[in-house]
Amino acid sequence: MSPTSSPVSPLPGPAVTGSLRIAFLGPFGTFCEQAARQILPADAELKPATGVESALLMVRTGEADRAVVPIENSVEGGVNATLDTLAHGQPLTIVGEILVPIAFSLMVRPDSDLELNDLQRIGTHSHAWAQTRDWVTANVGPAVSHIPTTSTAEAAKLLMEDPDCGYDAVLCSAVSAVQYGGRVLADGIADNPDAQTRFVLVSPPGSIPAPTGADKTTVQVALPGNESGALLSMLEQFSARGVNLSRIESRPVGGHFDRYAFSIDLEGHVSEERVKAALVGLHRTCPEVRFLGSYPRVDRMRTQIQRGTANVDFATARAWLDEVLAGRAV
Amino acid sequence: MSPTSSPVSPLPGPAVTGSLRIAFLGPFGTFCEQAARQILPADAELKPATGVESALLMVRTGEADRAVVPIENSVEGGVNATLDTLAHGQPLTIVGEILVPIAFSLMVRPDSDLELNDLQRIGTHSHAWAQTRDWVTANVGPAVSHIPTTSTAEAAKLLMEDPDCGYDAVLCSAVSAVQYGGRVLADGIADNPDAQTRFVLVSPPGSIPAPTGADKTTVQVALPGNESGALLSMLEQFSARGVNLSRIESRPVGGHFDRYAFSIDLEGHVSEERVKAALVGLHRTCPEVRFLGSYPRVDRMRTQIQRGTANVDFATARAWLDEVLAGRAV
Amino acid sequence: MSPTSSPVSPLPGPAVTGSLRIAFLGPFGTFCEQAARQILPADAELKPATGVESALLMVRTGEADRAVVPIENSVEGGVNATLDTLAHGQPLTIVGEILVPIAFSLMVRPDSDLELNDLQRIGTHSHAWAQTRDWVTANVGPAVSHIPTTSTAEAAKLLMEDPDCGYDAVLCSAVSAVQYGGRVLADGIADNPDAQTRFVLVSPPGSIPAPTGADKTTVQVALPGNESGALLSMLEQFSARGVNLSRIESRPVGGHFDRYAFSIDLEGHVSEERVKAALVGLHRTCPEVRFLGSYPRVDRMRTQIQRGTANVDFATARAWLDEVLAGRAV
Amino acid sequence: MSPTSSPVSPLPGPAVTGSLRIAFLGPFGTFCEQAARQILPADAELKPATGVESALLMVRTGEADRAVVPIENSVEGGVNATLDTLAHGQPLTIVGEILVPIAFSLMVRPDSDLELNDLQRIGTHSHAWAQTRDWVTANVGPAVSHIPTTSTAEAAKLLMEDPDCGYDAVLCSAVSAVQYGGRVLADGIADNPDAQTRFVLVSPPGSIPAPTGADKTTVQVALPGNESGALLSMLEQFSARGVNLSRIESRPVGGHFDRYAFSIDLEGHVSEERVKAALVGLHRTCPEVRFLGSYPRVDRMRTQIQRGTANVDFATARAWLDEVLAGRAV
Repeated sequence: MSPTSSPVSPLPGPAVTGSLRIAFLGPFGTFCEQAARQILPADAELKPATGVESALLMVRTGEADRAVVPIENSVEGGVNATLDTLAHGQPLTIVGEILVPIAFSLMVRPDSDLELNDLQRIGTHSHAWAQTRDWVTANVGPAVSHIPTTSTAEAAKLLMEDPDCGYDAVLCSAVSAVQYGGRVLADGIADNPDAQTRFVLVSPPGSIPAPTGADKTTVQVALPGNESGALLSMLEQFSARGVNLSRIESRPVGGHFDRYAFSIDLEGHVSEERVKAALVGLHRTCPEVRFLGSYPRVDRMRTQIQRGTANVDFATARAWLDEVLAGRAV
Repeated sequence: MSPTSSPVSPLPGPAVTGSLRIAFLGPFGTFCEQAARQILPADAELKPATGVESALLMVRTGEADRAVVPIENSVEGGVNATLDTLAHGQPLTIVGEILVPIAFSLMVRPDSDLELNDLQRIGTHSHAWAQTRDWVTANVGPAVSHIPTTSTAEAAKLLMEDPDCGYDAVLCSAVSAVQYGGRVLADGIADNPDAQTRFVLVSPPGSIPAPTGADKTTVQVALPGNESGALLSMLEQFSARGVNLSRIESRPVGGHFDRYAFSIDLEGHVSEERVKAALVGLHRTCPEVRFLGSYPRVDRMRTQIQRGTANVDFATARAWLDEVLAGRAV
Repeated sequence: MSPTSSPVSPLPGPAVTGSLRIAFLGPFGTFCEQAARQILPADAELKPATGVESALLMVRTGEADRAVVPIENSVEGGVNATLDTLAHGQPLTIVGEILVPIAFSLMVRPDSDLELNDLQRIGTHSHAWAQTRDWVTANVGPAVSHIPTTSTAEAAKLLMEDPDCGYDAVLCSAVSAVQYGGRVLADGIADNPDAQTRFVLVSPPGSIPAPTGADKTTVQVALPGNESGALLSMLEQFSARGVNLSRIESRPVGGHFDRYAFSIDLEGHVSEERVKAALVGLHRTCPEVRFLGSYPRVDRMRTQIQRGTANVDFATARAWLDEVLAGRAV
Repeated sequence: MSPTSSPVSPLPGPAVTGSLRIAFLGPFGTFCEQAARQILPADAELKPATGVESALLMVRTGEADRAVVPIENSVEGGVNATLDTLAHGQPLTIVGEILVPIAFSLMVRPDSDLELNDLQRIGTHSHAWAQTRDWVTANVGPAVSHIPTTSTAEAAKLLMEDPDCGYDAVLCSAVSAVQYGGRVLADGIADNPDAQTRFVLVSPPGSIPAPTGADKTTVQVALPGNESGALLSMLEQFSARGVNLSRIESRPVGGHFDRYAFSIDLEGHVSEERVKAALVGLHRTCPEVRFLGSYPRVDRMRTQIQRGTANVDFATARAWLDEVLAGRAV
């Protein structure tokens, strides 16, 4: 298992009869496939989906047992779709996260003798193009055209299958390059060498991974109003219990722009008292709170517990309160 | 029972064998005696104390069963002493509050023929003097002198007992005027006609008055540091649960000026979930929290429960969280 | 001019010699073209771009005078690209916003005799597919396949040009349907009838539209740390001046997940004192603040000015402070 | 000049013709006189007043040029009177602070042969009694009575003047013991050896002491409402500018208990940008703000300037904002 994925084998989530089927954002060769392979148990089966919604629907309908989908900074899109699909409809649970470093291979057909300077048109996903433009300008030239495709893997696939696909090279993942068998002119291409995409492993509800001390919890919270005061009050529910956030994103609710929900990753596990207290506070004061999972952090970074927010602090305080209520004030 | 006192008969607090003994800030004739009389059961006995500390000590040692002491805006002092004495030492509990409107009588000896314009020196407590100065200047004249005394009742007592007491008239309570039997030149004197002092009824711990929906809770809280950030964090423990404060006062800790405790009255009863959650939050994050009592408000003003902070909101949120923890996420 | 676009004619931003060139997210027929047409001056020229980055680059390089790009809830993607491209590189300024209601037409080739029940494969952008799935399932059937394309307009274009494009119908905008001249089987298709996309009009810097009392200001703010405390402190810079937010989105900084920037729309104009004070507060305390424009709200909803935050309140308070500093304390 | 007083010679505040007259809380021999002597210029004259109000009134009417009055943790009371008298009526300004360590001498008449174990009744101010009770119980015995007096100095004066004063010993300041010439049985008596009282030097307005980098500013602020939310918002005006508080005390407004004002000491000088911004924020949002002075801290502890709140940070941020407003957005 790679150090950039958090689930342990066997994969967390409800047990499965037979081999595990994992849906992912296809086709084969995407970074999402790479993510899925990082946690793939020996006898599991990978099932490509045409979109994030489809991948998650496959889990909801039982066509797949798990899904791997991008949730942050995806090179091939899908992040908003992931957040929104998880937030609505039949419950699903995040049970792990996976990091994939983002770098591209520039590939031509196996029989092509084109070199960097000969390239006229490059096919790839527009997000991939955005993350390689500096390199392309410097190494291929400023005049080369971009032909957008629905994924980097799709670009590679088409290049091999169809000489009339409209471009003479692709920028795709290393996995795609191997899979589709072209000639690689350059690899490890990334304008930002630290770029990575975060994926989540999603399962049907029923089983929350045990706390490890280095966990994340994902929730979706709708605000009661659209003022900054409402957002401040919501954040106060976290800070009053010393709960840190590692991600917060606003999502418009219902196609309007006058009401917002927030997708939030917080540091900690739902079984910890401070997280429980914060969730109770959210549920009391916000029109909608959806629990989307507690799972080990991929970076294994242990949660910094602020003074007065450990489980024992809650227990001590409640014991004191019981004394007070019994008339034995101290 | 007067509408300006909150305890109901029999007085709250642990039961007593024999007649109830109530200590108060003496001597007889003080506004504190007036406060005590507003809630005095038929067969109770009033015991004057020479100070707030003495009155409270009498309850601690068993010399008295209850004490009535000023806690806010006292005309005769003692407020800081009350706050500090309650906050340290053997536990005591506030079980009721009493309001006394503050107005003074100007009295000379019974045999005196002095009139307003003849007065040269007036004896009274310096706080009383401060609250009648405008009236005195307008009705007696700007040249009259103030002779400070330890209480207004003491002033009245000395005027009657000692012709050489050093003043020829006193400003005292109406009760004192009756008790010590002087000739009243004017009464109802108060530069601010709305002035009043708040007193509390204190008992040994053991019995918290039942919640009425219009309650106050008094606590003393020490801060972990001396920055405004620490105060903000402390207040956040209240606002995150929608708990309003009706009084907050800083008290220096241990004779230094680098650390503070706060004496706080909050709206609500310790048996309410939002108050319990706030107290647990304080206990977790502050070096010291002392519960000083939950008791009915003297003004009977019902607590405004903010959205999401009623007992049922806590129960609903916790039931939801139990579902989440059981893997039945919704 | 439509009531769903905010710029007034002539378009805000620096003056232009000759006819105005407006870049948009192409090809012709996208919802982005629709947005651009809502504010198009008589003699202006529309220039399609292959992506949001390209459209904005055309303004930066002078190939276009303005760009129209999606900024929120786009049916065809691009929102993150818009936020990130505006936030980095050569300065650009938002000078207006445009709302486009989102509904689709289902179109076959002009000579096709296929009806709803005959359709096997529908080409469209995956976001469009997500927003019409319920309708498609109910009216076409659950078995129909989705063939993803780079935009809805691209789908329409290919359907007309290439009989072997791989699908027999498309879901596209009404504009595309007219432009590419197919046969429309159904229109006004939208699972959420209120869905809309928000676009912004972007110009080179140099000229901020005058305040109207119903304005928005867009900024990008990087946080000093990754704790929820840092986010709370940042929001406090707004709430301390009574400035409301109408949008907040987190953006990971530099490809990592340990540091965040926030893209924010606030209610008000940069020339208002409370907005100025908030921006000064942000600039003081955050490692990076980027001003991205003040412009009239498309919905003309006037800003609710909270008590104590109008320009006159700032002027009065500063005049008082000047008196204090001059030793004339009041 | 003592290290426990902050004013420098000549005393800050408006210049005076002739010798400086300083009012203090008399009679001679109080701790307040001690405070005044710590900063007394060579040719100044001390004028005892019968109360804090009288002392401050003497400055208002021109009978005195300065006043020294207790403001925190006073052994002889007066603190609330100081806060309230400064907060209302003709403006006065605090220009310095003075610390006096609190310890008592136990004194009998010069010709008395009473020893510790012989004492039956001790005269002193009730606050002094509270601060020496442990010592008295241990060294004199638990049976000794307390006879309250208006000040410790008054107790000493009466003991010498009147054999029938009602007590056979006094607890007073060391200064009183010298002044009134009794026989000292013990000195340095203090249950808390660190106890001290803070006094302020008050002058007519007109001249604010120059900033030293180690300053305090005192203000009185009334809240717009009585909820904890209003207090949080008020504190936010400080925290948004990184201004720390070193004292906060609630004061009931107008004799009622439903509205509060706060007396606040903040760390910093009114001429600093962050303090100016906080005061402007308070003035905008609170019904009443009263500036009561900026003056050097007696402990010389330099203000910790938080990141982003130095004068240069404000200047830089405003210069950036000017660029933004000029259309040169960066």
